[in-house]
Amino acid sequence: MKNLKIGILGATGAVGQKFIRLLEGHPWFTIKGLGASERSAGKPYHKAAHWIEDIELPESVSKIEVTQCDPEHFKGIDFVFSGLDSSVATEIERSLAEAGIPIISNAKNYRMDESVPLLIPEINPDHISMIESQSFTEDGNGWIVTNPNCVCVPLAMSLRPFYDFFGIESVIVTSMQAVSGAGYPGVSSLDIMGNVVPHIGGEEDKIHTEPLKILGALGDANKITLADFKVQATAVRVPTIEGHLLSVSVKLRNEPDHIDDIHRAIKEWVNPISEYDLPSAPSKPIHLYKQPCFPQPRLHAGREGGMQLGIGRLRKDSIMDISYLALAHNTIRGAAGGAILNAELLAEKGYL
Amino acid sequence: MKNLKIGILGATGAVGQKFIRLLEGHPWFTIKGLGASERSAGKPYHKAAHWIEDIELPESVSKIEVTQCDPEHFKGIDFVFSGLDSSVATEIERSLAEAGIPIISNAKNYRMDESVPLLIPEINPDHISMIESQSFTEDGNGWIVTNPNCVCVPLAMSLRPFYDFFGIESVIVTSMQAVSGAGYPGVSSLDIMGNVVPHIGGEEDKIHTEPLKILGALGDANKITLADFKVQATAVRVPTIEGHLLSVSVKLRNEPDHIDDIHRAIKEWVNPISEYDLPSAPSKPIHLYKQPCFPQPRLHAGREGGMQLGIGRLRKDSIMDISYLALAHNTIRGAAGGAILNAELLAEKGYL
Amino acid sequence: MKNLKIGILGATGAVGQKFIRLLEGHPWFTIKGLGASERSAGKPYHKAAHWIEDIELPESVSKIEVTQCDPEHFKGIDFVFSGLDSSVATEIERSLAEAGIPIISNAKNYRMDESVPLLIPEINPDHISMIESQSFTEDGNGWIVTNPNCVCVPLAMSLRPFYDFFGIESVIVTSMQAVSGAGYPGVSSLDIMGNVVPHIGGEEDKIHTEPLKILGALGDANKITLADFKVQATAVRVPTIEGHLLSVSVKLRNEPDHIDDIHRAIKEWVNPISEYDLPSAPSKPIHLYKQPCFPQPRLHAGREGGMQLGIGRLRKDSIMDISYLALAHNTIRGAAGGAILNAELLAEKGYL
Amino acid sequence: MKNLKIGILGATGAVGQKFIRLLEGHPWFTIKGLGASERSAGKPYHKAAHWIEDIELPESVSKIEVTQCDPEHFKGIDFVFSGLDSSVATEIERSLAEAGIPIISNAKNYRMDESVPLLIPEINPDHISMIESQSFTEDGNGWIVTNPNCVCVPLAMSLRPFYDFFGIESVIVTSMQAVSGAGYPGVSSLDIMGNVVPHIGGEEDKIHTEPLKILGALGDANKITLADFKVQATAVRVPTIEGHLLSVSVKLRNEPDHIDDIHRAIKEWVNPISEYDLPSAPSKPIHLYKQPCFPQPRLHAGREGGMQLGIGRLRKDSIMDISYLALAHNTIRGAAGGAILNAELLAEKGYL
Repeated sequence: MKNLKIGILGATGAVGQKFIRLLEGHPWFTIKGLGASERSAGKPYHKAAHWIEDIELPESVSKIEVTQCDPEHFKGIDFVFSGLDSSVATEIERSLAEAGIPIISNAKNYRMDESVPLLIPEINPDHISMIESQSFTEDGNGWIVTNPNCVCVPLAMSLRPFYDFFGIESVIVTSMQAVSGAGYPGVSSLDIMGNVVPHIGGEEDKIHTEPLKILGALGDANKITLADFKVQATAVRVPTIEGHLLSVSVKLRNEPDHIDDIHRAIKEWVNPISEYDLPSAPSKPIHLYKQPCFPQPRLHAGREGGMQLGIGRLRKDSIMDISYLALAHNTIRGAAGGAILNAELLAEKGYL
Repeated sequence: MKNLKIGILGATGAVGQKFIRLLEGHPWFTIKGLGASERSAGKPYHKAAHWIEDIELPESVSKIEVTQCDPEHFKGIDFVFSGLDSSVATEIERSLAEAGIPIISNAKNYRMDESVPLLIPEINPDHISMIESQSFTEDGNGWIVTNPNCVCVPLAMSLRPFYDFFGIESVIVTSMQAVSGAGYPGVSSLDIMGNVVPHIGGEEDKIHTEPLKILGALGDANKITLADFKVQATAVRVPTIEGHLLSVSVKLRNEPDHIDDIHRAIKEWVNPISEYDLPSAPSKPIHLYKQPCFPQPRLHAGREGGMQLGIGRLRKDSIMDISYLALAHNTIRGAAGGAILNAELLAEKGYL
Repeated sequence: MKNLKIGILGATGAVGQKFIRLLEGHPWFTIKGLGASERSAGKPYHKAAHWIEDIELPESVSKIEVTQCDPEHFKGIDFVFSGLDSSVATEIERSLAEAGIPIISNAKNYRMDESVPLLIPEINPDHISMIESQSFTEDGNGWIVTNPNCVCVPLAMSLRPFYDFFGIESVIVTSMQAVSGAGYPGVSSLDIMGNVVPHIGGEEDKIHTEPLKILGALGDANKITLADFKVQATAVRVPTIEGHLLSVSVKLRNEPDHIDDIHRAIKEWVNPISEYDLPSAPSKPIHLYKQPCFPQPRLHAGREGGMQLGIGRLRKDSIMDISYLALAHNTIRGAAGGAILNAELLAEKGYL
Repeated sequence: MKNLKIGILGATGAVGQKFIRLLEGHPWFTIKGLGASERSAGKPYHKAAHWIEDIELPESVSKIEVTQCDPEHFKGIDFVFSGLDSSVATEIERSLAEAGIPIISNAKNYRMDESVPLLIPEINPDHISMIESQSFTEDGNGWIVTNPNCVCVPLAMSLRPFYDFFGIESVIVTSMQAVSGAGYPGVSSLDIMGNVVPHIGGEEDKIHTEPLKILGALGDANKITLADFKVQATAVRVPTIEGHLLSVSVKLRNEPDHIDDIHRAIKEWVNPISEYDLPSAPSKPIHLYKQPCFPQPRLHAGREGGMQLGIGRLRKDSIMDISYLALAHNTIRGAAGGAILNAELLAEKGYL
């Protein structure tokens, strides 16, 4: 039985709150430290945070005193989750890693670093060994593992079976993204109620690049060779609360003979971590819906604790080869939940 | 000064109401007949219709007695607008046309008929002459002109400049459609609030075919040669009230050298009906937004009385050639307003 | 350990679906019969129903063949839940009761019948004995118990402590009601998105009368003496999915000296069924929020499985005596969940 | 023909933008100065403001250079509208008034000042003479007139006829307020989508007091005697864009014999400024809806340019005397539009 003491960086923000919610009652991890900005430091968590989750703030966390995010406050902690804002994550995460503290980060700052795994346990678990090429400490005790952007998670997960069966040449995606993706207070109600905003700053660049690393091949010396396809993204904000829905078209390298072959790619895909029985792992990471009106953010983003990817309307495309819709819970599967699953796999494999 | 007596078929439905609203105070057309189903016939309009527009029901229309949609009730009418449901439009529109009554229809039933213009005045005004190949009456007095589906209007309008300058090979589009497109009561609030429904029955087929006719070339004997490109569509419902927003990627036949060439295609496009000064015509049918967050359905669908197409985020695409967002007011530009503009052009050209 | 076979009337509707969802895995009750209209009869449930819940349709129910709602189809069933539409409930519920089948009904039809309990287990559990005055069958095996309207549940629950401590003279309430209260498809998205509809047909009459029965005193011969106060209601529809929020002002018979006395009324109120440990009973039926912005439908309606009443902003009123907000999940606490709790109490007390 | 040069204070905020929109093409007033904070000063307006209105930013305003709000920048201006935030309005408005510049303010700061009119032209036009008791300048050229809070406008307007006919003893109101009332960015989408927030900081105090001044009697020396009734308010935020909807119950001093008497109070109420033909004045300031589902924010808040009050469901109340719904456009009638009408009346009466 694992029993690890953990800290959360950026604990008062929207991602930090989701970490706290998802970790309540976790069988392996116990929250012992909560880091936030100078403004919050010194206050008990329930006073420092404007709690926005729809469950009650767990009592076990409510009275923990929030500290700043320096290494000295996280001594004795086995590892930290980082929900830091990208404006401060580079410095803070490095300083903790250099102090020998492993970091499971949701921040974007180190995602494309060539020694840092951009990890989705069911998709590229072998990338974990990249940790060994990191040099934050001499003894290798301090390291960083990241999870991808909240659109890249459903995109990479849905592409994996097609990539393995057919190869991929190019991907065109329009992502319809929920307001929770912008944090709190995030998107103004005046901007989004009854509306769609056709641009999300900085998002499309991530969608163009992260999937190529996630699906990249691990080679000698733990280096990644990026996957060799192109992604073109249009990221828009829609008035949904949770769940990014992607309209995806894919050009394959080897054209499938029949739509059944495409469905088979999904059905025959093997979840490489199913043997481990990790606490947050969905029993079925990818679900293919047959009903034409599914998946829907409000109904299906929360399936399997928000950790299941939904694919719908998988069909032949007259221009590319296949088109489909993909849905994942952006703040669980695409953020805090994904990071927790990363930590569980790392713990299972003995890194924690 | 034109002064025409007009009727409206399907007058109590959502499209019929939009016709009434837009025709209030129209300088050329005066409503004289209102046709609806048997259930409504015999009642004054204000009792027959559940008025859902945000202006007061015009008094001039309020007391008109609703009739059934047979030809005898529309004698003495110069022409009718049809907002009929597709389940009844085939029979009714034919019977009126055969009785010598011109029909400007929003229904889909005759759109792909090879003798029926699928008309957008700024895009394919020459198609009007197809009327002459119709044979509903011997004297040619009864005929049908249609306007396209509410997604095909912004799609075809936005493609026209690129088609003329570069040629088009293929088009991939994800259309994010407002609830008003489904009529009233239409979409259940439980289905769409805080949600996206990734399928709209029958919609994608229209998007795959109608643009090819709209951009087709009029040849001998008033026959259309369909435009030679492919369209692949994903149509989803989003919680907006008015305004369909399209995420479009286009493969051109002649690749532009530079993004400026693409912008020039829009800027140098010439509106072929600007000379006529039609009452419902927008002064600028296509507006290219420079702000990355524009156009937005709630803010921009109503520009120029809901008759202006908005294009935004026009950019080079790494896979196709260009990508952009297109927005049009679905129940005005994409339905009743488009039909009224069709009638104005037909009147201007002497067909009415 | 109880082990009862149950049926659901109106199983394909929104309330019926909620029954199925809430009964999945219930320790005492197992679904054996599903009744619906002639149109659905003969089909397996998954084909008869348009499933709208956000969990997967339970497999155990999916293949049950739907029947009509006559008694012969429910032989061998221990009791039925009724989610019938009021247009058919009078006849069907009577016919089953006369056939000796106990009915736990969410329909309004028998709520104000003088022999039928209008039951909220924590509020008026003694009213159960009214069953004994029913005469559907000679042996008393067939009877009807109802739960109140979805606004009356939070209203009566919140009034109970004040009624007991101070007496009540009059109540003014504005109820802001979620769209799920109108069933499916229910409220049109065009009516409610970004809007408030200031009238809900038939709703206010129930709010004026049902609380007086719920808080009425059980007297000789199991007759209820209605509570002696007046209620004035304004019921409006707001764009929320689940959770009716009530703005309530109450004139008390004995004016409290201090706001603390009012808070004490809530705190010292004793839950009369806490001893029974019923599976669906909330551990804390009434929660008093201290944060001025709470309770909110989206965050708090689902607390304790949707069975907890939330009260917020309890304060002195300058005109009446006290004012507060009350919130309850309308389709769980105010409908299916309330009915299930009624059944659990009836089973515990030996009526089932 | 009046021709006045005007300035706008707080020009870049949500209220300031509404002033600009409503004043575009105004026959009497021309925008000559735009004041904002230090951060915006020196920039042309189109760069200083994040324009959120659904019309294009008027060209005439777009290039005006924004200045700070000191008197020197508004020399030569005939008067200013103030849309200043309350955190800065006290100082700035006083300094301009002392510099001899008349101020028509939407800010709350001077509303309850005993020499400042809290003006609704149709309700208390005689209060204008309070200006004469102000002492900002010796010559009386600098003065302040305010318009009421956006809930108090529909409340006071709807109460006026009943106050005149029957007298009022007390008023209980639940106001369901649109997000635009909180400015921009204002309410977070995560707080309000599919939700109701049962508290709006500071709002209820204004509702308790402002109506008493608005309906107060002007006595000797231009002093107001406050109206002698009590108001108890519950202010909640609902997911509407524009239009505050109030659920109101009123105890009258003289009980009406019949509901017809109440309706007559509305019908026989005489608009005291109808003679003036002010550009922004609605032809019918108060409209009584007969349809039980009206008025609705999305459909009716914009009637008569957003300047008409809607009253619906006027009925006898079993506890107070009458109950009804009242609706007004909060950022037009309840803010910028109301201030403009104030200015028009003041100009008409020779104060400007």
